[in-house]
Amino acid sequence: MVTSNPFSALFGRSPFEPLLAHIVKTSECAERLLPFFDATQASDWDAAATHREAITALEHEADTLKTELRLNLPNSMFLPVSRSDLLELISVQDKIANKARDITGIMLGRQMQVPEALAPAMRAYLETAIATVGQARKALEELQELLDSGFGRNVSDVMHNFIRDLHDLEHQADDQQVQIRRQLFQLEAELPPVDVMFLYKIIEWIGELSDRAERVGSRLQILTAR
Amino acid sequence: MVTSNPFSALFGRSPFEPLLAHIVKTSECAERLLPFFDATQASDWDAAATHREAITALEHEADTLKTELRLNLPNSMFLPVSRSDLLELISVQDKIANKARDITGIMLGRQMQVPEALAPAMRAYLETAIATVGQARKALEELQELLDSGFGRNVSDVMHNFIRDLHDLEHQADDQQVQIRRQLFQLEAELPPVDVMFLYKIIEWIGELSDRAERVGSRLQILTAR
Amino acid sequence: MVTSNPFSALFGRSPFEPLLAHIVKTSECAERLLPFFDATQASDWDAAATHREAITALEHEADTLKTELRLNLPNSMFLPVSRSDLLELISVQDKIANKARDITGIMLGRQMQVPEALAPAMRAYLETAIATVGQARKALEELQELLDSGFGRNVSDVMHNFIRDLHDLEHQADDQQVQIRRQLFQLEAELPPVDVMFLYKIIEWIGELSDRAERVGSRLQILTAR
Repeated sequence: MVTSNPFSALFGRSPFEPLLAHIVKTSECAERLLPFFDATQASDWDAAATHREAITALEHEADTLKTELRLNLPNSMFLPVSRSDLLELISVQDKIANKARDITGIMLGRQMQVPEALAPAMRAYLETAIATVGQARKALEELQELLDSGFGRNVSDVMHNFIRDLHDLEHQADDQQVQIRRQLFQLEAELPPVDVMFLYKIIEWIGELSDRAERVGSRLQILTAR
Repeated sequence: MVTSNPFSALFGRSPFEPLLAHIVKTSECAERLLPFFDATQASDWDAAATHREAITALEHEADTLKTELRLNLPNSMFLPVSRSDLLELISVQDKIANKARDITGIMLGRQMQVPEALAPAMRAYLETAIATVGQARKALEELQELLDSGFGRNVSDVMHNFIRDLHDLEHQADDQQVQIRRQLFQLEAELPPVDVMFLYKIIEWIGELSDRAERVGSRLQILTAR
Repeated sequence: MVTSNPFSALFGRSPFEPLLAHIVKTSECAERLLPFFDATQASDWDAAATHREAITALEHEADTLKTELRLNLPNSMFLPVSRSDLLELISVQDKIANKARDITGIMLGRQMQVPEALAPAMRAYLETAIATVGQARKALEELQELLDSGFGRNVSDVMHNFIRDLHDLEHQADDQQVQIRRQLFQLEAELPPVDVMFLYKIIEWIGELSDRAERVGSRLQILTAR
């Protein structure tokens, strides 16, 4: 077999390959949250359940990739980066997929629906979170490409841009969260208290999606630092 | 003194010994949750307080073992496994004992009682969580035995079975949690909202007991991987 | 340039210097919570917003220090302590600053006010938490001084006292939390349920300030263990 990656020629698979496969699953997990959200708002609980199942399946596949990476890590003396840094990164990535699964679990279980007044802001907020996860995936894909094509661009520069974009997206998600919490605060009196608390929980969890995606970036920065 | 463990003969105590002592305390901590739960349901707050004290004492002993392990880890160049993997494992174990303590703290402080309709499912759910912790303890005991008796069974095979059992138990706890949340959701309207939120918190925390017990298994798998 | 620190003479900056700079910011972050709390109780929302901004700015500076430390860690073969232990410590410290920021975010966003009956106990509880963070800062300052002046006192002894003080303060905060939860439990019926839940959240987060400050101590103990 011919591969254009000298790194794997000499030292076996790049440690970034399984990380990339994992973030791809994770990112697909996150993207499914949008059709899921739309289904809940349309009270189409069958569709919501189908999306929930897809997300659970993707999360399970990500989990399997995480376990494989963990168990295969110690087998190579040629690991060019810190083993505990890699374990930390896969762990941060995995929490994104878990959070997506948890969001759908609570929303479907309680047949939650976001109040109409909140829905547009909530959907936009979710889109930002998904975009942040997508950006983390792009950063890993770019790293893999640098390894494969060897164009010799400066890795630190490339990563620097991704880190900045991730930071901007996470900041935008933060601002959106503040606005949504403010709007919900105005509506609180009219809603059942327990439903209000679970709405706040979903808002918090969506924020954690983009927060952890940004942390994937910080971890990549540590890994590729010189 | 005569010991039948060549490993400790050559390199001092096996790093699994303090980990085993710690999971034993942790497991005893978790087991006490059942009589505690029964006392709260019987409104026997004196008995509940006694069990709470026992759990707090066990958690304190586990904590001391954790600190001892941490401070004594760096003293040996002969540590046959990754130091940060061991610190991670003891840390996961310790969170189980802490969670058991927190559950009793909230329940006793609020004199919480699970609604009668929920109680049987809740007790069964708690039993599953305790069984998962017990299984994690069995995995460590088995490892210690392999070290002591040297019967030469394949460690990976033995661990593989424990990991599978832990996974099955955790999955069962997950299913039970979904059922209980569904039942509580039906009852919500009849209960004070703040009490409902704390019931959900206890349900979540019991789930974390089995979740972390399963993570003890994953960590052992990483430690014993070849 | 002349420096009185042989350690940095030979091996470049002590790894404790950036950690110390970070805990100083973190501690200033925590101290600001008291005037912020007083402003909220006085319904002076402009002053509260000003304190919130100061805390956010300090948290941002701490974050920058954390990133710098992380990216500069791998550049020295002479790191006299475990790299992952240092990353763990800076990570624990950083969570203190984040928590202080989160507390002000929720309280200002909801214009939260602690019920008058609870306020004195709550303020005392907050003071204990801030004192625990201050104690963690003192421990790092003391370590730095030992490095600079080289008075040859036994590091383990010095650390032992700080660890004990941190433990005592954290224990005191725990007791105060139990009392406050009990008082709030009595008041629950008279308050809007969602407000009650957020009060419990603030109580929990203040507890996490002192909990994490104590963990800074445990981490220093691991780092300076022989």
